[in-house]
Amino acid sequence: MIAQHELQRLINDKIARLPLNAQPHELYEPVRYFMSLGGKRMRPMLVLMGCELFGGSIEDAIDSAIGVELFHNFTLLHDDIMDNSPLRRAHPTVHEKWNVNVAILSGDAMFVRACEMMMNARKDVVQQVMAVFLANALKVCEGQQFDMNYEQQANINLQSYIRMIELKTAVLLGASLEIGALLGGAKESDAKLLYEFGRNIGIAFQLQDDILDVYGDEQKFGKQKGRDIVANKKTFLMIKALEMANSYTQEELRNWMQATRFVEKEKVKAVTAIYDFLGVRALAQKEMMNYFEKGMQALEQIQTVAHRKKDLVELAESLMVREN
Amino acid sequence: MIAQHELQRLINDKIARLPLNAQPHELYEPVRYFMSLGGKRMRPMLVLMGCELFGGSIEDAIDSAIGVELFHNFTLLHDDIMDNSPLRRAHPTVHEKWNVNVAILSGDAMFVRACEMMMNARKDVVQQVMAVFLANALKVCEGQQFDMNYEQQANINLQSYIRMIELKTAVLLGASLEIGALLGGAKESDAKLLYEFGRNIGIAFQLQDDILDVYGDEQKFGKQKGRDIVANKKTFLMIKALEMANSYTQEELRNWMQATRFVEKEKVKAVTAIYDFLGVRALAQKEMMNYFEKGMQALEQIQTVAHRKKDLVELAESLMVREN
Repeated sequence: MIAQHELQRLINDKIARLPLNAQPHELYEPVRYFMSLGGKRMRPMLVLMGCELFGGSIEDAIDSAIGVELFHNFTLLHDDIMDNSPLRRAHPTVHEKWNVNVAILSGDAMFVRACEMMMNARKDVVQQVMAVFLANALKVCEGQQFDMNYEQQANINLQSYIRMIELKTAVLLGASLEIGALLGGAKESDAKLLYEFGRNIGIAFQLQDDILDVYGDEQKFGKQKGRDIVANKKTFLMIKALEMANSYTQEELRNWMQATRFVEKEKVKAVTAIYDFLGVRALAQKEMMNYFEKGMQALEQIQTVAHRKKDLVELAESLMVREN
Repeated sequence: MIAQHELQRLINDKIARLPLNAQPHELYEPVRYFMSLGGKRMRPMLVLMGCELFGGSIEDAIDSAIGVELFHNFTLLHDDIMDNSPLRRAHPTVHEKWNVNVAILSGDAMFVRACEMMMNARKDVVQQVMAVFLANALKVCEGQQFDMNYEQQANINLQSYIRMIELKTAVLLGASLEIGALLGGAKESDAKLLYEFGRNIGIAFQLQDDILDVYGDEQKFGKQKGRDIVANKKTFLMIKALEMANSYTQEELRNWMQATRFVEKEKVKAVTAIYDFLGVRALAQKEMMNYFEKGMQALEQIQTVAHRKKDLVELAESLMVREN
């Protein structure tokens, strides 16, 4: 197996040399800019690791890996417009640095290039690879729409919330692994199991995100605590708290959510106290572990040389105990 | 050969029954709405006619035909946002009827569905079909960016203008025919010739558009004359006029373009008079015929049963002498 930092170097190298036309400058410069902002490159890593799991060669999978990363960044670029976000990875977003039209169109071009890279897959699996890619690309769009819908709604149930994070984030992690597996020569049933591993770990990862926002170590986590609380984000913790609270506590929560003038630290402290009182952290952790275990079970069922699974197990564990 | 209105019926029928998920409503309803607004369905027609030209079966080409139409409508949907257009085919645009975020995201979903339909092509040609589709999809994005750039620039030369209309419109007409040809079993060289036919006819078509805006029969054309003049659109006529005008006439043109308060009819009349004086209409017609002839020459070179070309010749001619 190739070391993860080696795979990452390979991915970043390939991204840096991604062929793009020179003109029009306004179309391609934002693509170069956005792709250079970095990130963990988790999805292309998963494509390559999925391929290696079945003894496939990295060369066969690298273009699809870049394709998935291009697609992921295209969704971030368009999400940034929709969420009106000024920053992405501590840099100005494309619609801030250029304008909304440039952001829409360069995102579209990025998606076209993503498809082109995916189409470089081997002829014998290209239709399977594209079917997985496109079906999950559509799910990511659905997830983003649900996310926007839920922002406008006062009450969301947990099932809808989990379905949303599954669509918006988890399925693309699963798809990355499944695509890698197909390129590595896996049987379809094994590729599907690897998808299930990624999808479940992905949901666990998002739930962990919700928990870390409130209970993470600020020092280690490198982020201010309670950003979700300040922004009234309907996380697992908030939805569960609203569901469990008696009418008095529920009113207290709603008051904090409706408050337009407040000291941020006080709001975070008060809402956290309610979470603690109701014990929603433990429930979120239980739910998270539940998905984590489901993911691990799927991985175990896959018929391949056992020691090859080690890297994926380690990656999954590191996602659960992480610092950013 | 199947009659054109039969093909159109087939296309509209297939579009009406296009499988789309039910939820989220806000993602898929705009897709259904936009696709139902109609239009000439020229691109899917060209896919089917390209296929028939080589004796291929319509069933083999229909999904790709719908894929191209979905892609085309996706670009219109996003262009409407960028151009801030309130109406499309006399109906509210998606960003007007819903909002910009819905328009961005439902457009993205439409593009994914377009790719899925394209991937239904026969296994032996799917990679060629997708390569043509994606390469030209990227060109369409480039064309839209050039178009937006040129709106901000005082001086555009004719070569840049023609390159822009080629990218924004003509290449997708060419690609539709080429994709159809590939699906119909054409040799690659013949498929490329058919692309050249479509690309050249497409440029001629756009030049004809520029001419008809000023010189079209209002009654027959069903549109008010001189919309391009009122909007200061840099058409072939305007660019050529600015290029040919002496300093006095040039100033007159620039004054009309910079005027913020004017009677529309007077502006149209004055600018048309300058066009007439300079004789730019005849030059535009010459240029148009030049591209038309080039297109016809490419068609002639194609090695296929001659009588099958008849429908394409008729279509090309009807595009040149049209009423809408």
